Amino acid sequence: MRTTKTVQNILRNYEGENPGVKTNLARMLSEGKLGGTGKMIILPVDQGFEHGPARSFSVNAPSYDPHYHYQMAVDAGLSAYAAPLGPLEAGADTFAGQIPTILKVNSANSLLPKVAPKTQAITASVDDALRLGCSAIGFTIYPGSSQSLDMFSDIAEMRREAAAKGIATIIWSYPRGEDLDKDGETAADVTAYAAHIAALLGAHIIKVKLSTDHLSQPEAKKAFEAGQIAVKTQADRVRECVRSVLNGRRLIVFSGGASKGANDVLDDTRAIRDGGGNGSIIGRNCFQRPRAEAMKMLQDMIDIYKGKA
Amino acid sequence: MRTTKTVQNILRNYEGENPGVKTNLARMLSEGKLGGTGKMIILPVDQGFEHGPARSFSVNAPSYDPHYHYQMAVDAGLSAYAAPLGPLEAGADTFAGQIPTILKVNSANSLLPKVAPKTQAITASVDDALRLGCSAIGFTIYPGSSQSLDMFSDIAEMRREAAAKGIATIIWSYPRGEDLDKDGETAADVTAYAAHIAALLGAHIIKVKLSTDHLSQPEAKKAFEAGQIAVKTQADRVRECVRSVLNGRRLIVFSGGASKGANDVLDDTRAIRDGGGNGSIIGRNCFQRPRAEAMKMLQDMIDIYKGKA
Amino acid sequence: MRTTKTVQNILRNYEGENPGVKTNLARMLSEGKLGGTGKMIILPVDQGFEHGPARSFSVNAPSYDPHYHYQMAVDAGLSAYAAPLGPLEAGADTFAGQIPTILKVNSANSLLPKVAPKTQAITASVDDALRLGCSAIGFTIYPGSSQSLDMFSDIAEMRREAAAKGIATIIWSYPRGEDLDKDGETAADVTAYAAHIAALLGAHIIKVKLSTDHLSQPEAKKAFEAGQIAVKTQADRVRECVRSVLNGRRLIVFSGGASKGANDVLDDTRAIRDGGGNGSIIGRNCFQRPRAEAMKMLQDMIDIYKGKA
Amino acid sequence: MRTTKTVQNILRNYEGENPGVKTNLARMLSEGKLGGTGKMIILPVDQGFEHGPARSFSVNAPSYDPHYHYQMAVDAGLSAYAAPLGPLEAGADTFAGQIPTILKVNSANSLLPKVAPKTQAITASVDDALRLGCSAIGFTIYPGSSQSLDMFSDIAEMRREAAAKGIATIIWSYPRGEDLDKDGETAADVTAYAAHIAALLGAHIIKVKLSTDHLSQPEAKKAFEAGQIAVKTQADRVRECVRSVLNGRRLIVFSGGASKGANDVLDDTRAIRDGGGNGSIIGRNCFQRPRAEAMKMLQDMIDIYKGKA
Amino acid sequence: MRTTKTVQNILRNYEGENPGVKTNLARMLSEGKLGGTGKMIILPVDQGFEHGPARSFSVNAPSYDPHYHYQMAVDAGLSAYAAPLGPLEAGADTFAGQIPTILKVNSANSLLPKVAPKTQAITASVDDALRLGCSAIGFTIYPGSSQSLDMFSDIAEMRREAAAKGIATIIWSYPRGEDLDKDGETAADVTAYAAHIAALLGAHIIKVKLSTDHLSQPEAKKAFEAGQIAVKTQADRVRECVRSVLNGRRLIVFSGGASKGANDVLDDTRAIRDGGGNGSIIGRNCFQRPRAEAMKMLQDMIDIYKGKA
Repeated sequence: MRTTKTVQNILRNYEGENPGVKTNLARMLSEGKLGGTGKMIILPVDQGFEHGPARSFSVNAPSYDPHYHYQMAVDAGLSAYAAPLGPLEAGADTFAGQIPTILKVNSANSLLPKVAPKTQAITASVDDALRLGCSAIGFTIYPGSSQSLDMFSDIAEMRREAAAKGIATIIWSYPRGEDLDKDGETAADVTAYAAHIAALLGAHIIKVKLSTDHLSQPEAKKAFEAGQIAVKTQADRVRECVRSVLNGRRLIVFSGGASKGANDVLDDTRAIRDGGGNGSIIGRNCFQRPRAEAMKMLQDMIDIYKGKA
Repeated sequence: MRTTKTVQNILRNYEGENPGVKTNLARMLSEGKLGGTGKMIILPVDQGFEHGPARSFSVNAPSYDPHYHYQMAVDAGLSAYAAPLGPLEAGADTFAGQIPTILKVNSANSLLPKVAPKTQAITASVDDALRLGCSAIGFTIYPGSSQSLDMFSDIAEMRREAAAKGIATIIWSYPRGEDLDKDGETAADVTAYAAHIAALLGAHIIKVKLSTDHLSQPEAKKAFEAGQIAVKTQADRVRECVRSVLNGRRLIVFSGGASKGANDVLDDTRAIRDGGGNGSIIGRNCFQRPRAEAMKMLQDMIDIYKGKA
Repeated sequence: MRTTKTVQNILRNYEGENPGVKTNLARMLSEGKLGGTGKMIILPVDQGFEHGPARSFSVNAPSYDPHYHYQMAVDAGLSAYAAPLGPLEAGADTFAGQIPTILKVNSANSLLPKVAPKTQAITASVDDALRLGCSAIGFTIYPGSSQSLDMFSDIAEMRREAAAKGIATIIWSYPRGEDLDKDGETAADVTAYAAHIAALLGAHIIKVKLSTDHLSQPEAKKAFEAGQIAVKTQADRVRECVRSVLNGRRLIVFSGGASKGANDVLDDTRAIRDGGGNGSIIGRNCFQRPRAEAMKMLQDMIDIYKGKA
Repeated sequence: MRTTKTVQNILRNYEGENPGVKTNLARMLSEGKLGGTGKMIILPVDQGFEHGPARSFSVNAPSYDPHYHYQMAVDAGLSAYAAPLGPLEAGADTFAGQIPTILKVNSANSLLPKVAPKTQAITASVDDALRLGCSAIGFTIYPGSSQSLDMFSDIAEMRREAAAKGIATIIWSYPRGEDLDKDGETAADVTAYAAHIAALLGAHIIKVKLSTDHLSQPEAKKAFEAGQIAVKTQADRVRECVRSVLNGRRLIVFSGGASKGANDVLDDTRAIRDGGGNGSIIGRNCFQRPRAEAMKMLQDMIDIYKGKA
Repeated sequence: MRTTKTVQNILRNYEGENPGVKTNLARMLSEGKLGGTGKMIILPVDQGFEHGPARSFSVNAPSYDPHYHYQMAVDAGLSAYAAPLGPLEAGADTFAGQIPTILKVNSANSLLPKVAPKTQAITASVDDALRLGCSAIGFTIYPGSSQSLDMFSDIAEMRREAAAKGIATIIWSYPRGEDLDKDGETAADVTAYAAHIAALLGAHIIKVKLSTDHLSQPEAKKAFEAGQIAVKTQADRVRECVRSVLNGRRLIVFSGGASKGANDVLDDTRAIRDGGGNGSIIGRNCFQRPRAEAMKMLQDMIDIYKGKA
């Protein structure tokens, strides 16, 4: 594995970090067709936990099998594959060394009753990540939830342990909480704030959802207007998120949510590229398509990130 | 102990697991009359905890004695015997090496008041399992309960410790919670989801109840219909559960609930076999019958799993 | 110390246990006038915690002194003396080696407000028991309380530690909870269930209260009737408790509650003996009498257990 | 340091305790003008935490300085000085070896809102006590509070650690809780019960407030009357407290509360002496007086305890 | 690094502390243009966490970059720079050795719903501080909150660990809670009480907000009047705070809150100097100004502290 200048420059931003973590960041940044470009596409498959197996996989039955996802990530030349403990373990031997993996260490689900606290269960450990040869752990936080302080403390502690053991940390930062309405959850200001919190907590890579041009918090709205922060286009909003992760000193990737047309996905990809984002994390839009369609779409995304489209 | 090709193929699915855990899985898969077939019958006796001694044992008084269950499991040629700490310890010397044992490490009970949280008490540890020569720990989760996130975190942690010490983990996945009605607890979609969660948490063997053809969650119902997932017969529903445990890469066994006629039990057994399930976990239907009847029924089940009936 | 055949047979039931625990059980079973008979009388003095010093000791002023109880247990030839940390520590040197001691490691009190959770405080540790030369720890659980799951987990953990260090565990199993009325707390079915739970949790000795012929839980009532379980006499009810502690494979002792006439105490003793119980645990009925009367009563109890009365 | 026969006899009561703890008890019992008499006067200065600095110190401005208190304890020939971490640390070097110190390890304050749980924050550790050369830790419990079970468990654990490291434990036992009214908090029965609980928890020295002749708990009132326990005079009530700490086998000191006239303080002192108490713990009545007055009053107290007044 | 007599005298007040902590205090007291004077100016940048990135940085866009703050602290000759984990780590290499750093280890945020507990998340550890070469940790407490007891216990524990590892502790003491209105949060009595609590908890440096002449607690008001404590001028109020931190034996610095005119900031600075405070901790008033203006203002503050203005 050789690291490009681009990758070396990115690694240089992780000033306080040890070589173990940097090596794992370099692995993900050097893997696949985007290797060396500073851009990444990550395949995350934890929707079975979140929505149940039938809602996630029945539209494309082969995707019930964990090997399907491993193989697609390898064949499409992606940067990494993320999943909970069970499915990661089900292919860890077969695909050892073929693709960097990310162990998702906490999860929610759709069986939870309305009264349940707005948080997730910690379902795996840093030592599991080590044992399975993973490059990173993935952890979801819900900024805005009354449980968020505990989530922050939990990931701060896991991040510390992971980094000490040379494992990188990716934070999925999803605004959600008692005082946030649906529009607020994807508002431009709230999304940038969520990205900022993840960076402050020490995330090596931040994952947020693409946002809307809505501004939710009155005080923030004033600041966006006074500071003339553009939010009109998706690229504008990506740019503000990039600036909010320590002025671009941290990697940030974006997800697009529920299934949609391939053209919409590619438009999103261009916006991420144009706003200076580091890439995409894309699950349902991959495995809920027939494999051939998904492979084509992924190649198109790669071409966009490489500036060929 | 020699492992058959069938067993070796099953073990191969546990890719990330260490030889200690695989050896214990092999012990259960190679024991008794179903040894080597990839099918299992497990005798679980924790009903005294759940329902009290009189409701569990008085209909067949010899079953008050823990040795009764050990002996029945041995004599009937079953795959393993599961129980809480006290009764397991009461026969651990006498039956050492005669039958693989599973330490049930959490338990609920019928004395709990309605206001009690919907969870179980952790009543034994991994080190107890080691000390008593057990092959696995058993842990119940209640997907759907507001306490379920804590239960998931607890078993994730115990599973990690158990596997590190070479002990397998069996998860009893029982949907139960504030927003689930009685029909929902045994619905086809909810049962498959519960099985999936157990597999994601890293269970080596998953135990669920046989389900009905009811579909409880509206979004899941849509997916079942769109994906044309059959739920009409018990075998259909078993099949969807098997697919939901990492496309059959994990062992899954089924329980049938309260006492019923032997013919019903045998019908269940055929459905499990036809749907591709790995076997039965059967308690009250064994020890609440006169011993001779129970032994006959177990032999019939074994014949069905072996394809002789 | 020589162990009798009777004691050796009892010890044999503790199949999974190490020689350290068995030695301490043997010490209690071999001590005093009942030594070697398989019967025990234990003096517990934790009423000062539960009810306050004046209500416990002022009727017999010398009993304010912890040495009073140590000396009575020694002089009366009892099997063991149980108390919280403070009083045990106040005589540990003077009476070292003269009588096996049991450290009561959790306690409730009468100053607690009604809103307090129905549980007890853990007030001493296994290492305290080791340091003070104790043979066992004593722990109270409240089956039926919404806090009981935590109590079960706590004692499971302390039992594990105690046994690993060669200390036996005695569980005081007292039904008490939000859905149990006064009659339910001492009902025959609930008492047997409480004894069963203690045995499942791994108690080496179980302590319950003598029960009434009331049957509290409807499902249990049906089972008692269907199974023709006699509950008319106290001996009947003791017998069902004995059967509920792993078919008599665990030691079980009974307490009688508040002060009463010596004849009533002796009637209780006969019922325990006739029902196959292993003895008495008797506190207020000892130290709230003038010493001479108490000594006489204890001798009468011993004679009953020895079959001389 | 030579210990008198009186001190040696007191130490003998701590039967189960190690020489490290006994040495520290001996240090406090041998210090100052009451050294060797079995009586103690302790200066506690944690009122700044409880009531704020202005209410505590502005009436006598030099008392804002922690050295003021250290110096007064030394100059007046007291037995020990007790304070929270900050002030103790501010004089630990200057006064090293000049006076035994007690680290107050938990504290409440007057800024807490009414909804706050009735408990205290643990604000220092046993290792802090070791590091600062302290002879004891001081811990407040609130018998009667719904939080008291947790407080009991916390001090049980800290006491265990402290004793293992040779540090003595002093429990401030202050009845306070949801079902206790103001009269109940200082009632004779409740105070004796609170002293008893502290002794049961293993306190080496118990601190309670002087009580009134009110009897608060109906059942206790009956026992006081049946047992003819005198509560009319302060000396009577002190006597019942002494009896309630393991029949006088534990040291018990008394506090008088808010500021009052020197004559009242001296009357209290005589009552403590006459009732057999082991001394006074007196804070605000010392440092809220001009130094000369306080020194005179302390000397008068010493004379009373020495039987000279 | 040479320490001045002034610094040596300050260090002497930390009597119980080890040379490691004293060295780190000396580093901050010897750094920059105020080095050796006993005065400090600290630049804290955690407003992004508290208010979000847009509200904090968009008014002066270069301040999105963590290096901006490091560089300003160095160029202005300040005493130290404080920030959360992420931004500190983003410049730890580049600025290693150029300026003492303080790791802010807990944080709140503006996305929290109203129902959230009034506390902060612990977001970094003492070992993070060691790893990043920090001189101190910073921790916020909310005296007055129902969560404050837990916050006190948490910082007591972190302080113990930090000090044992040679790291100093700075407590941000911000009154806030269920029974405190807006006026109460900045009242003279409450502020002095908050400073006192931080000192009692063992803080090496205390940070409070400048207060108003309002007196909030009735009992404290009486004491202020009886003790003739002046609160009319800001210098008066600073003086009472200084006295409340162990009679000036601890360092105390003051913050001024939201942005305001440079003249107001300089007036505050004079009041802190005249009241005997040890300096300023000033964030938004630095980085929300154009850099040149901020540099000029900081130089003016330094001149005031040096007695040149």
